[in-house]
Amino acid sequence: MLLPNLRTQVFEANLDLVRKGLVLSTFGNVSGFARDEGLIVIKPSGVPYGEMKPEDLVVTDVHAKVVEGSLRPSSDLPTHAALYRAFQSFGGVAHTHSEYATAWAQARKPIPCFGTTHADFFHGTIPITEPMSDDDIAGEYEANTGAAIIGALDGMDPAAFPAVLVANHGPFAWGPDARGAVENAWMLEAVARSAHLTLGINPLAKAISVPLLDRHFFRKHGKNAYYGQAEIKE
Amino acid sequence: MLLPNLRTQVFEANLDLVRKGLVLSTFGNVSGFARDEGLIVIKPSGVPYGEMKPEDLVVTDVHAKVVEGSLRPSSDLPTHAALYRAFQSFGGVAHTHSEYATAWAQARKPIPCFGTTHADFFHGTIPITEPMSDDDIAGEYEANTGAAIIGALDGMDPAAFPAVLVANHGPFAWGPDARGAVENAWMLEAVARSAHLTLGINPLAKAISVPLLDRHFFRKHGKNAYYGQAEIKE
Amino acid sequence: MLLPNLRTQVFEANLDLVRKGLVLSTFGNVSGFARDEGLIVIKPSGVPYGEMKPEDLVVTDVHAKVVEGSLRPSSDLPTHAALYRAFQSFGGVAHTHSEYATAWAQARKPIPCFGTTHADFFHGTIPITEPMSDDDIAGEYEANTGAAIIGALDGMDPAAFPAVLVANHGPFAWGPDARGAVENAWMLEAVARSAHLTLGINPLAKAISVPLLDRHFFRKHGKNAYYGQAEIKE
Amino acid sequence: MLLPNLRTQVFEANLDLVRKGLVLSTFGNVSGFARDEGLIVIKPSGVPYGEMKPEDLVVTDVHAKVVEGSLRPSSDLPTHAALYRAFQSFGGVAHTHSEYATAWAQARKPIPCFGTTHADFFHGTIPITEPMSDDDIAGEYEANTGAAIIGALDGMDPAAFPAVLVANHGPFAWGPDARGAVENAWMLEAVARSAHLTLGINPLAKAISVPLLDRHFFRKHGKNAYYGQAEIKE
Repeated sequence: MLLPNLRTQVFEANLDLVRKGLVLSTFGNVSGFARDEGLIVIKPSGVPYGEMKPEDLVVTDVHAKVVEGSLRPSSDLPTHAALYRAFQSFGGVAHTHSEYATAWAQARKPIPCFGTTHADFFHGTIPITEPMSDDDIAGEYEANTGAAIIGALDGMDPAAFPAVLVANHGPFAWGPDARGAVENAWMLEAVARSAHLTLGINPLAKAISVPLLDRHFFRKHGKNAYYGQAEIKE
Repeated sequence: MLLPNLRTQVFEANLDLVRKGLVLSTFGNVSGFARDEGLIVIKPSGVPYGEMKPEDLVVTDVHAKVVEGSLRPSSDLPTHAALYRAFQSFGGVAHTHSEYATAWAQARKPIPCFGTTHADFFHGTIPITEPMSDDDIAGEYEANTGAAIIGALDGMDPAAFPAVLVANHGPFAWGPDARGAVENAWMLEAVARSAHLTLGINPLAKAISVPLLDRHFFRKHGKNAYYGQAEIKE
Repeated sequence: MLLPNLRTQVFEANLDLVRKGLVLSTFGNVSGFARDEGLIVIKPSGVPYGEMKPEDLVVTDVHAKVVEGSLRPSSDLPTHAALYRAFQSFGGVAHTHSEYATAWAQARKPIPCFGTTHADFFHGTIPITEPMSDDDIAGEYEANTGAAIIGALDGMDPAAFPAVLVANHGPFAWGPDARGAVENAWMLEAVARSAHLTLGINPLAKAISVPLLDRHFFRKHGKNAYYGQAEIKE
Repeated sequence: MLLPNLRTQVFEANLDLVRKGLVLSTFGNVSGFARDEGLIVIKPSGVPYGEMKPEDLVVTDVHAKVVEGSLRPSSDLPTHAALYRAFQSFGGVAHTHSEYATAWAQARKPIPCFGTTHADFFHGTIPITEPMSDDDIAGEYEANTGAAIIGALDGMDPAAFPAVLVANHGPFAWGPDARGAVENAWMLEAVARSAHLTLGINPLAKAISVPLLDRHFFRKHGKNAYYGQAEIKE
């Protein structure tokens, strides 16, 4: 079997979606990417998480063509593939139906940065895609979803914005590997829920200032980070 | 005992209401219908789920007349019977008191299709019945509830709208069998909750476009479906 | 020890508050009343539920004078006593801090009857007390709380309204015994939560019609009730 | 090892944050203060709660200088230290990311006293800090956070207001020891949640009257307290 380690990692990351309460029923999917080999490992389509086995995962190339596996890959595979082609740093992609992030996507609102927890993980407003045109929906819908996400990240560093909301659909998140993608999907949900509660108290709540945003984001990211136990950078 | 298999199936489907968190106390009820025999199997009235035994279920004809069983059937039986008489495809009906679907029913609002998860299961706005007239309430109330549901489905395919809200009351859902009815009641609740959260973020949220609705609904339904592992249809 | 059976019953009913999620920390209290003996059994003040033993309960007369017990009775005892003196049918009283009922009390709003689940248990709007005067607060505060509840029930049948909200404080519920009081406190919480969710969807939601209210209330109450397995009444 | 008892106490108090559901991921931190020795014991920075061992805690002086420990202390240490220097009565400080208190902080709203449960623990509106200036953010940010909390308590008794919201950030709470600080952080969250639910019912809800506030606060605090089983004060 191809890529046994990546297969295990992606299998565990998919189950992690369930443990973290980020998916309903058979929805949601995680993939991992072996960039050197140009191969994606992804969840099969519509298989219940409780019944899925590691060998059910599907291996495809970066154009979503199946290379190994007897089941159909997740129908969202072309979205994942588009992201791996566009961004060199992506090693894992997660698509969830987490409740609050999905609600923001359905409300067609980007998530403002209302607090420092948000700023610890996302360097500002979490973007939302433009609604797709009727032609894009009728055509290669899943690939065009990928293009919409890429468009929403235009001019931004995807490591500083490790998730995007797809309008009227739900969130996609990413990271250096499948596990990191799920971690970011989970942080996104926490931030989305907190922002929802904030609006319930103050519908006119405002985003934090840029200096506060920068202070928190760079406490945890970049060469001057001083949170946690990482080696001291010079 | 009549219909032992259907009895087991309906018994399990009733317990599934509890496992899925769709009912409070003794409320809610599921029935199954053996169309060839013209017999309904339904939960007894007001018996706690934890104490109910398979032999407590009641068998009736399609006019709600008891055929077998020593307990009273659910007081909502005439509603179930009306639905089985009206729709050839119904093999199971579930009535729940699930929290968010009930809140929409109490708010007297149909549930708009705010997102693709909704569109995966319901082909548009989930309908709500017209309030019943005082005469209908004073008369054969439960049978008239069935008539109100049938009215709300006028001109629609009940397989594409597998649930309806009864105004000021709560949801009824159906399917090819009792288990399928409970599955649909559960999806309805997920959709109702998500739509509630969406309104909390954007009280002016709008329904998705018809092309996006169709794209998602027909990814999972009909001859061109391509979600899951079903045999490829020609 | 006096009234061993009532003591056991009240002890269990207090623990039931915890099991049903109706209290925070040491808050809340349940009492039972032996009307023939004129004796109240009530929770001691401020004792953690997990450490409370049956012998910690306090027995008092109907004027809140301790008859048996070495601990202080709940500080809310004079409220309970006032209710037992005022209403012949009361055999148990429960005071909770349940989340949604407390929120309605804090919002100083009676709970409208938005649906049939509410109508199954409460025959209309759940009343809220008038705010107490400064003199009533400064004086016999807990006894005056009882008087405010009695005032809110003026002209109503307390069996058809088995709970009242105390403005800016929280709910009191009652029943034929301590267990029934806790059951009603729990139904109140379910109704309060459902009404909260309803307002989140439609801030202008209206109460159900009187015929629908009566239909549901009298399906379960009075000589024409037809819900459940009770003997058929003539 | 220095202060073994305090170390154990602070370790347990940190785990209590997790048990009480007050933190996400590695966030949040509790410290304890040995005033006679002038030493603080605090959680290390960014260590997962499930992996933390008592010996990982860090001992520092009251100017946040490490005295014992091989790990970095929590990045919020200078905030804790500022509070211990400012208030003689503080023996423990807790910083959480509890959901509802954080939402109030993000909404930049102090928490009004809507009910008697709030009044039992906080003697009025729970204060929120002024937003920090850009200079304060760019400078000694964590120490300046402490100064902002001290400013929010100006003219108030911190024992009657055992928690403050830091604008756009989250709550800090305190008490006579680490355990008491966590208890207060937990009560704050309960009060914050209840106030949120109250606004959902009545966006114009008003604070309780001063006599009712005083009645409840002084039922539990000060020489005339009569709640619980404490010795009768003269």
